Order: sequence, then C-alpha cells, then structure tokens
Amino acid sequence: MSYTHDAEFCLARTLGEGGLEQQIFEEQLQGCKASLARLKDDKDNGRLPFLTTPGERDDLVACQTVVSSYRENCDDVIVLGTGGSSLGGRTLYGLATSAFGPINGGPHLHFIDNIDPHSFDVLLKHVDISRTGLIVVSKSGSTAETVSQFMALLPIFQKEYGPDKLSERVTVITEPRPNPLRKLARDLGLECLDQNPLIGGRFCILTLVGLLPAMIAGLDAAALRNGAQKVVDQAFSGAQMEDIPAAVGAAIATGLQRQRDIRQTVIMPYEDRLADFGLWYNQLWAESLGKEGKGTTPIRALGTVDQHSQLQLYLDGPQDKMFTMIYHDAKGMGLPVDSVLPKGEDSLSYLRGRTLGDLLTVSAEATMQTLAKNGRPVRKFLLDKIDEETLGALTMHFMLETVITADLLGVNPYDQPAVEQGKVLARRMLKDL
Amino acid sequence: MSYTHDAEFCLARTLGEGGLEQQIFEEQLQGCKASLARLKDDKDNGRLPFLTTPGERDDLVACQTVVSSYRENCDDVIVLGTGGSSLGGRTLYGLATSAFGPINGGPHLHFIDNIDPHSFDVLLKHVDISRTGLIVVSKSGSTAETVSQFMALLPIFQKEYGPDKLSERVTVITEPRPNPLRKLARDLGLECLDQNPLIGGRFCILTLVGLLPAMIAGLDAAALRNGAQKVVDQAFSGAQMEDIPAAVGAAIATGLQRQRDIRQTVIMPYEDRLADFGLWYNQLWAESLGKEGKGTTPIRALGTVDQHSQLQLYLDGPQDKMFTMIYHDAKGMGLPVDSVLPKGEDSLSYLRGRTLGDLLTVSAEATMQTLAKNGRPVRKFLLDKIDEETLGALTMHFMLETVITADLLGVNPYDQPAVEQGKVLARRMLKDL
Repeated sequence: MSYTHDAEFCLARTLGEGGLEQQIFEEQLQGCKASLARLKDDKDNGRLPFLTTPGERDDLVACQTVVSSYRENCDDVIVLGTGGSSLGGRTLYGLATSAFGPINGGPHLHFIDNIDPHSFDVLLKHVDISRTGLIVVSKSGSTAETVSQFMALLPIFQKEYGPDKLSERVTVITEPRPNPLRKLARDLGLECLDQNPLIGGRFCILTLVGLLPAMIAGLDAAALRNGAQKVVDQAFSGAQMEDIPAAVGAAIATGLQRQRDIRQTVIMPYEDRLADFGLWYNQLWAESLGKEGKGTTPIRALGTVDQHSQLQLYLDGPQDKMFTMIYHDAKGMGLPVDSVLPKGEDSLSYLRGRTLGDLLTVSAEATMQTLAKNGRPVRKFLLDKIDEETLGALTMHFMLETVITADLLGVNPYDQPAVEQGKVLARRMLKDL
Repeated sequence: MSYTHDAEFCLARTLGEGGLEQQIFEEQLQGCKASLARLKDDKDNGRLPFLTTPGERDDLVACQTVVSSYRENCDDVIVLGTGGSSLGGRTLYGLATSAFGPINGGPHLHFIDNIDPHSFDVLLKHVDISRTGLIVVSKSGSTAETVSQFMALLPIFQKEYGPDKLSERVTVITEPRPNPLRKLARDLGLECLDQNPLIGGRFCILTLVGLLPAMIAGLDAAALRNGAQKVVDQAFSGAQMEDIPAAVGAAIATGLQRQRDIRQTVIMPYEDRLADFGLWYNQLWAESLGKEGKGTTPIRALGTVDQHSQLQLYLDGPQDKMFTMIYHDAKGMGLPVDSVLPKGEDSLSYLRGRTLGDLLTVSAEATMQTLAKNGRPVRKFLLDKIDEETLGALTMHFMLETVITADLLGVNPYDQPAVEQGKVLARRMLKDL
C-alpha cells in the first residue's frame, strides 16, 4: 500500500494518560471485525458499490470523448454542484493545480459550489464562454443550488453555442431515473452520464463525479482506482484487525470518544496538494456520523500553516481532540533556505544546509511529538509519495474508516435526514417571497 | 454601524432549553462591563494600540509609493508570512478577488504561508519574476517559515533585479528593533516598514500588515479603518452592555460554555467574499483563548455550501456548538434561476421568479431558523453591504469580542506560550539532520 498508518500515540501504552486503554481498544477492534464481515457481505452482494467501483474501467472509457473535447477546446471548465457533487472532484484536482493555476497546463477547473450572486456576476465578466466547458452534477437532479446555478448560466451558454452545439460544452451527471435535471438535459439534447443511485454523494469521489473532472485535469483515473483497490483488498484479506488501518482508525476514534470524551478530530496534512482533502473528509465524517446526538466533529487544518494559528489551542486548550497528521518525507527536497543567511546570525544557524522540504518534514515530526508530549492523541499517515495512487488509497481508507465507525456507533452512514427540514423551509420561504 | 447583531436565538428566553439562562447572561454582562472599563484604561494609556490604529492615517500615506509602484509594475504580488502575518491581508483581499482572479484588475496577490517545496517549484515555473513584487512579513523577524521562504526566493529576485533594483520589488515589514530579517533587509538595501511591537500578529489586520496588501489590491484602507473606528467608538461610548455587540457576544460565548458545555463555535458567512474571514477569525479565537485547558474551538463554515456537508452534524449531532451566521440581504440580486424551468416541473416551481440572491438569503434565514428549532444557539450578523467599511467593522467586532472573552475566562489573549515547545524541537531536529 502507498501509505503506512501509525496510531501508537493514540494508545495509553505509548501516549500515557491521554491515550486509549488497551482493553477498550481491543473491544472496539472486536466490533470492527464484526463490522468488516457485514461490509464484506454487502460488498459481495452488490449492496455497496462504492467498494467495487475501484475495479471498474468501462465507465472511464465511455467518457473519454467528453474528456478529450474539454481538454482540447476549453481554457476553463466550470463544475456546478454542491456537497458530494463538488468536493470529490475538487479534492482530486488538488493534485493537478496550484495557487498559480494548473501545474501542467490543461483547462483551469472551477468548482462552483455556492450561489452567491456576486460571484456569478464576476464569473461572467472574467470567463470567455467560447472557451469554457460546463459540468452539472446532482445525484437527485433537484438540488436547489445546482439547478439554480445551471438555470443562471444556461442562457449564456445557449446564446454562445446555439441549440446544436450546446451539447459539446455542457455535460450532466445525474441518476438514471426521471428527475428535473435529466428531463432538462434531454430537452436540450445534452449528454447525460449516469450516477449510481446506490452511491451517495460523499462516497462517490471515485465514480465519474470525481473522476470526470480529474481526467479533464489530466490526472490518471485508473491509478486513483488502483490505489483504492489495494486498500479494499487489504481490508478484506482476512488480516488481523490490528493490521487493517481503517479498522484501527475506527477503533481509536470510537474508543477515545467513549473513554476520553474526545469530541473533535483534526485532520492535518503537511502538503499543499492535500489542502482541500479535509473539505472532502469533513463532509464524509460529519454527514455520515453526526446523527442522533452522536458523532465527533471533523476539523480541517494544514501544516505548517496552522502551527501559527491553531496549535496553541491544540496543545494547551481543552483535551477534547484527536489528531491525524498526513505527510510524506520531503527531506532534501526543494529550494535551499540558507542562500543569504546574514553572517554572524547564530539564531538562524539551524537553517544552514537545509531545504524547504527539510523544514516541512521536520515541522510535521516535531509537531506530532509535541502533541504527544502534551498527552494529545495523534496518529500519522506517512505517504510514499503524493500521486494518484496514494490519493486514491487515502480516500478509500477514510470511507472505510467512516462506515466502520458508523457501525460501531450504531448509526446509518448513508443518510442525512436532518438536512431535509431546512430544505423544506427554504422552499416555502422562497415561494412566499 | 454597518451591521446589526442579533443574538436572541442564543438566549433561553427565545431559544428555550438549549439557550443561555437570563441570570447567567446578566452575570457575564457584568463581567463584560468591568472588562471594557479595563480595556478603555489600556487604550487611553497607549497600551493597546490595536484599538487606536483605526484613527491613524499617516502610515497609509507613508507607504503610498510602494503601493503605486507595485500596482503599476506587477502582475503578481507574493506575500510571504504565516499566521497573523498572512491571514489579515488574505481576509481583506477577499473583497477584491474571486475564483477568476482580481475582480477589478490590478495585481494578483498570493499569500504564501506554507513551505511546501512542491509549491515553490510550481511558483517558479509559473510566475514571471520580472513582473512580480514581494512582501515579506514577520513581526519577530525570525519566523523559521518566513525566513526560509525568503531565503528560497531571494536569489531568484536578486538574479532578476540585481543589487540596485532589488528594493523596487522587495519590501519587508517587521518590528523596529534588531532582528535577522531587518538585518538582512538593511544589508540588501530594502525598504523596511515598521510593525508595532505592541500589536501581535492576530490583532494587526488593520495595520500595514493587512493594509499594504489590501491597498495594492485596490481596496480603500481608510474605509476599513473607519468601519473599525465606529465599532471602537460605540463600544466605549458608555452604552448599556446589552447594546454593545462585542460584549453580548463575549457574554454569550462564555455563558454557553459555562451553562451548556458549548465547546465549539461555528462561524458561517453566506458570502464568497467572506469565505476566508473564518481563517483569520480561527487564529484570533483559538490562539487568544486556547490555553490552560480553557477556550472553545473555532470552526469555519460557509453557506450555503456547508448545508450540504456539515449541517447534518450541526442539527442532529452532539449539542456542543454555537453558531454565528453572517450575511446581507441579497434578495432580488443576481441572475434569475428560472430561465428554462422544464414545463410541468412542479417540484421546482418554488424557483419561479427568483434570483440567485433570493435563494442565498432565504437559505441563510431558513438554516438559522432550523438550527434554532433544534435547540442550537445561533446568532446573526446582518450586514448593510459587503464593502471595506463593513469588513473593517467586523474585524474590530471580533477582536473586541475575543479580548473581552479572554478577560472573562481569565487568560491572556496576547500570548501563545505553548507553541514555543514545537519550535524549539523543530530547530534542534533540523540542526541534527
């Protein structure tokens, strides 16, 4: 596998008082074993296609025409969608982009997940529609925000492309059953790619919802799935629970909540390309587990940045958090950081002979040790490298960890019933405006 | 003032069981009164210059040459700095930029607060150094990340500009006392702008640290300060505590923690231009209060996006959060969202005659009501509009609210002692590599 998972600093045997006692850890692992057995049954019987998607390739071939056309003809690609329809693609796109635009050329992707009218006014001012592609993603086909976004932009695309060429630049992804978006797509003659109704938004990062944008950005979708497949294979290989990272993670999260009242889980990559990973993870964890008064709160951080923002609270605030550090060994990488050290500046002598990568990796290690020294449970993912295979593996790890955790907590990870209330109210208020 | 603050849904008299009881609210407000009196004394005696900075203008005039030169000669401006040296400028820049670059032209600003070697490699590949300006910000002048970033990029700027012209494109902001960065700047003949040693990073958003980038982006720095000044004036006007929003906010945050074990505070603007506001707020709140086991954890959300990610947890997860909604009335604004509603599509009829702004504002209101209905304490900031004056007011509101809260908790909001451990360890590990 493309990462190692080390959770020793979450366990009392290593961390001391803030850690999880061995007995509870083992009880939770027993629960994981039962949970994995149920998952295996569901997987083998086709009830959990998010676990089998990594083995598929046909769908990737089927959308190759769209990919090529967008890559060839578009400077910008706008992805309309919100929640799981946006966060997966956006997370994967992190591998291909930077603060300065796409790393290796190709279209610039924009994941527009909000409905701020000002942002749309700016978009129209800045984007050359004749070189812009649109992807509209809504599983239900009736998400108010996504349909509204599409309604807002459609006349502009219609004006540019006319009825005949519209389908070259507008693609829809939705469930293969009747819904408003699909109806609209059919009326307009647009290509409609199918979203599997059995894979909810927060579990669909490795379906076309995440992979179509990724492929347009030039990423290797097969490698993403390969990385995920290896995690699935290992989890269901019959290995000891202690050797299955997703089981260990679930046992620790639930055990620490039970024994130490740990209510928040901080995910902290030391890697700009993974800066948005926490956005995706936050939805996965919060929406899957936050029900019936249960669940813990996911918090997105970034190293080293948040050492200068959140670390004070993490080290010396309430003891209510666990931490997940994600990094790879970047020692020796990057530009040197001692180019013009002022002579006689002993206070900076620790930078002599060092690179940006040295500083980054050492900061991750030092922060981890400092958290542990302060009795804060912390685990690490050490990544082989930052690429598609690793990212695919990470996404599958966390999806598995989340559904096992849900099972241990006794909640259904696949629904989000509470959200409905606000939607109904908003619709009524809109009608009554 | 440019906003109204409504916290009724945090109080038991309106929210019911999840809210703060009147008696505790009043006790906390009494504490606020004493705290504001102490703050006034500190302010009047020059010990808290972050409260008097809004009245100054000379420093803005003094840096006008740098501003004009960067605006005229640069396509990109890179701001090096981390924590408070970055987040303030970045938050203000939100008013001037978008997913598609600067809204009204001017240079594209990049707040580089990390040391990821990969990101620097990409930067060098993508940026035209001959049209790039650099601002280096470190209060102490010895922040490892910032000095390293500068060391990494300096040779490239030296090569482009030579010793004579370097000062036209590289500007340093640091304290006016001897430190490595200042020494280096002097050796290189660079302009060094002074950072007030009495204003810590997380309170310096309205000093040049935040305002120099803002001005380069074309924002009105005087208006930002005017907005803040009005908040200061009102807070020290002798008004009733119930009428001073920062006091009410501090009383509620501490009261809810005390009475209802509220441990997390979610800040949720419904406004893309305020999407980064929570980054700045998170540092302010976490680093000022998270000490001696005290403080609550700040969480950044964004509406409507997080309705599709975090709202399930917020409504039905553990009852351990309070919520701050920030929005303005955007009803009637933006593109229509009913352009091509399929005929007979009754399920979307609520969109007829509506705009993006209708949907955004109604979503904020519906979410607020739904949170309240579920017994979750929630307050709102209703903004007159989104501009410099309003943003300046908001920043001052939260700085005041934070220092009053610190006083009520009995912690020092201006230090961050725990962070030192990790720094010392990282330096030693770097030396021993």
